[in-house]
Amino acid sequence: MEKLRNGYLFPEISKLELQHIEKYPDAKLISLGIGDTTEPLPEIITSTMANYAHALSTADGYSGYGPEQGNKALRKAIAKAFYKDLPVKDTEIFVSDGAQCDITRLQLLLGSNVTIAVQDPSFPAYIDSSVIIGQAGEIKDEAGRYRSIEYMNCSPHNNFFPNLSTTSRADIIFFCSPNNPTGYAATRKQLEQLVEFARQNGSIIIYDSAYSSYIRDDSPRSIYEIPGAREVAIEISSFSKFAGFTGIRLGWTVVPEELLYSNGFPVIYDFNRIVCTCFNGASNIAQAGGLACLSPVGFQAVHSMVDYYMENAKILVETFASLGYQVYGGANAPYIWVHFPGSSSWDVFTEILEKTHILTVPGSGFGPAGEGCLRISSFGHRECIREASRRLRTLFQ
Amino acid sequence: MEKLRNGYLFPEISKLELQHIEKYPDAKLISLGIGDTTEPLPEIITSTMANYAHALSTADGYSGYGPEQGNKALRKAIAKAFYKDLPVKDTEIFVSDGAQCDITRLQLLLGSNVTIAVQDPSFPAYIDSSVIIGQAGEIKDEAGRYRSIEYMNCSPHNNFFPNLSTTSRADIIFFCSPNNPTGYAATRKQLEQLVEFARQNGSIIIYDSAYSSYIRDDSPRSIYEIPGAREVAIEISSFSKFAGFTGIRLGWTVVPEELLYSNGFPVIYDFNRIVCTCFNGASNIAQAGGLACLSPVGFQAVHSMVDYYMENAKILVETFASLGYQVYGGANAPYIWVHFPGSSSWDVFTEILEKTHILTVPGSGFGPAGEGCLRISSFGHRECIREASRRLRTLFQ
Repeated sequence: MEKLRNGYLFPEISKLELQHIEKYPDAKLISLGIGDTTEPLPEIITSTMANYAHALSTADGYSGYGPEQGNKALRKAIAKAFYKDLPVKDTEIFVSDGAQCDITRLQLLLGSNVTIAVQDPSFPAYIDSSVIIGQAGEIKDEAGRYRSIEYMNCSPHNNFFPNLSTTSRADIIFFCSPNNPTGYAATRKQLEQLVEFARQNGSIIIYDSAYSSYIRDDSPRSIYEIPGAREVAIEISSFSKFAGFTGIRLGWTVVPEELLYSNGFPVIYDFNRIVCTCFNGASNIAQAGGLACLSPVGFQAVHSMVDYYMENAKILVETFASLGYQVYGGANAPYIWVHFPGSSSWDVFTEILEKTHILTVPGSGFGPAGEGCLRISSFGHRECIREASRRLRTLFQ
Repeated sequence: MEKLRNGYLFPEISKLELQHIEKYPDAKLISLGIGDTTEPLPEIITSTMANYAHALSTADGYSGYGPEQGNKALRKAIAKAFYKDLPVKDTEIFVSDGAQCDITRLQLLLGSNVTIAVQDPSFPAYIDSSVIIGQAGEIKDEAGRYRSIEYMNCSPHNNFFPNLSTTSRADIIFFCSPNNPTGYAATRKQLEQLVEFARQNGSIIIYDSAYSSYIRDDSPRSIYEIPGAREVAIEISSFSKFAGFTGIRLGWTVVPEELLYSNGFPVIYDFNRIVCTCFNGASNIAQAGGLACLSPVGFQAVHSMVDYYMENAKILVETFASLGYQVYGGANAPYIWVHFPGSSSWDVFTEILEKTHILTVPGSGFGPAGEGCLRISSFGHRECIREASRRLRTLFQ
C-alpha cells in the first residue's frame, strides 16, 4: 500500500471538481471528466426494479441470498444477448457488482507471483490493483512506471496497438477494447495477433469489453470472436456504460472452461471459489434490472441511450477536429482522446478547467504514454455537450 | 488457491441441500442451514427502494456513480443509529455490499505478510480469505489447521472466550461477537481483556458485529464501547441479518482515525484507497433501502423482524434442551450451538438430514473446535421452526 500513496485517479478528479465549484460558486461547471452516465433509465427497466423491490415485502416475492455467481436467468440472458453465436455457456458467466470489482477479484485469483502487461495508456485500476496485490515491484523511473509491469505503448504511431514483437512476455495481459481512455477499438486482425501472442507465451488475457456496445463498425465486441481465445482469455464486462447502471452496480466476468493453468487445472474452479468466498452476489434488485435490460424492449431502449451518448461523442470530435487538433476515439467508444502536442496533460487540464469550467481527465493519469493528451467523456446532457463545444471553440479559436 | 481446493462451506451445504431434494423430491425439507433470512421486509423499506428505482427514469431522480465510501446521508444515519453515544464519525464509516466482501477488502489492505488469529470455531471467510491472500502457510495437522494461523479455542470450557495468556501474538485478530457459529456474545469484561491484549501486542482487531442487533442483554454491541478500542479495532457490520438484506447486499466498515500503523500512518487512508480502487460503492437502490431501515419507523419495523427470529431461536433452544442436549447461543444471536458428545459433526448432520429432512451446518465446518457440534439457524418461517421442533423431538426422544 505504501507504493500507492497517491490517490486513485477518478476520486482525485472529483476532488478537483469540488474545489473548483468552491472557488467559482457561480460558474456552470460541465463535467466531461470521470465518465459518469447522466441520462434517465428507460421506464421498463426502472419499473421492473421497482416491482422487484416492492415484492420483497411479500411472502412470495421475498428472497434472501441468491447464488454467488448470479441468478440463472440473468446468466442465461447475458449469454444470449452478448455471446449469441459464440460458445459461451451461462455457467461460464459470473454476475458481479461491476468490472472494477472483478478486476480485483481476478487479481486475488492470480496472486502476487505473476507478471502483468498493460496497455499504456490504460484504465488505472489494472495497475493500481496490481500494486495492491504485490505484483508491480518498485517504481523504476520518473514517469512512475513500476519495475515488474510491462507497459505496452498504444499510441497513434502504432495505430493504438502494441508492437508485440518487442513486448516482453507476461503471465497476464490486461487489454481493454474499445479502449479506455483512447476510445480505440482493436480490429479483428489485431486481436488475432494478441490471442496468438498469448497462446505462444502461455499468458492469460484479461479482456475488458465494458464499452463493447459503443462499437459502430465491425470490430469484435468480444474476445471470444477470435478463434482460440477460449484457451487464453477471461472477459470482464459491465452494465454501467451499456445501460447506465453506474450507480446500480452490475457487471459480469466470463471464465471459459478451456482456460487451464499450466498444470491443467481449470481456472474457472478457482474463480468460482473466489466469488463464493470473497463476494456474495450482486444485489438482487440490480439483477432484476439487468434482466429487464436484456428483454427485447429493454435492449432496444438501452441501445437508444448508447446512441445518444455516441451523438454527443460526434459533436465533441467535430469540435476538436474543427479547431485543428488531432482527435482519436469517439467513433466506437464514448471517449475522445485529444492530442495537445508539446503540452503537459495537467497544464491543459487546468487551463481548460480554469478558463471554461469544463472538467476533463489528463491523459497522463492513464499512464506515461498518455502525456500530452486529454480524455474527454461524452457522457452528459446534450445541452451541456453543446455548451461545452461552444466554450472550447471560444477558448481555442 | 491450491491450498483451498475444498469448496467454501456454505455453497457446499447448499449443494447437499439440492442433492437431498433430488433424492427425496416429496420430502418437505426445512433449512436451518446457511442462515438465510426468510421474512418479507417492512413495506416502508421496500417502497422507499421502489420509489428510488422508479425515479431513476426521471431527469431529477437519475444518479450515476455515488461516492465509493457510500452516500453521506447513509453514513451519517449509520453513525447515529449504531454509534450514538460513541465517538464514531460518519467519515470513518465505509458503506459496502456486505461484511463478507469487506473481509476480503481488509485482507487486501493487510497483505500476505501479516499473521492472523481467529476464534475456533469461526465464520469460515476469515481463514479462507487469509489462505487466498497468502497469510495462512501450509496445512500442519490432520484437523486442517494452517501453520501460520493462531487458532483461539472458544468452547464451553472457557466460556467461549480464548485464554489470552496462552494465545500467541498475531498482527490481526478476527473476533466475531455475537459469534457465528456459537451464538455467544462476549461480555464487556472479556472485550476489555481483548482490547488490552491487542494494545499490548500492537495487534489490530477486526471485530465482526454483524449480529449485534440480536443482543438481548447488556453485552457490548460495538467494540467501540470499550475504552481504547479506537486505537486498535476495525469494525465490520451488515444490514443482512439486521434488516433481512441478505439478497439486497449492504454493510459497512468502521476504520477509526486513531488506528495507525506502527510507523504512525493512519490505516483509514489506505482503506479509503482500497475502497476507491477495488470497489465502486454499494448499489444506490440498496443504500436508499438502508436509509429507510434507519428512519424511526423503519428501525422499529426491522427490530420486529429480529424479534421474530429470536422467538424462533427460543423455540429451538427449548427443543434441544428438553431433549437433554447441551445448547449454547440463541439468547443473543440467531444461531444455536448444540453439542453431541462423542459424535462427528458430519455424522449428526447426515443423520438429521436423512431422518428428518432438516438441513443444519456441521460444527467442524467452522474449525476443528467445532467438531461434535451443529450450528442451527433460527432464520425461517415460524411454522417451519415448529415443524422442525416436532421432527427433532420425534428423532431424539
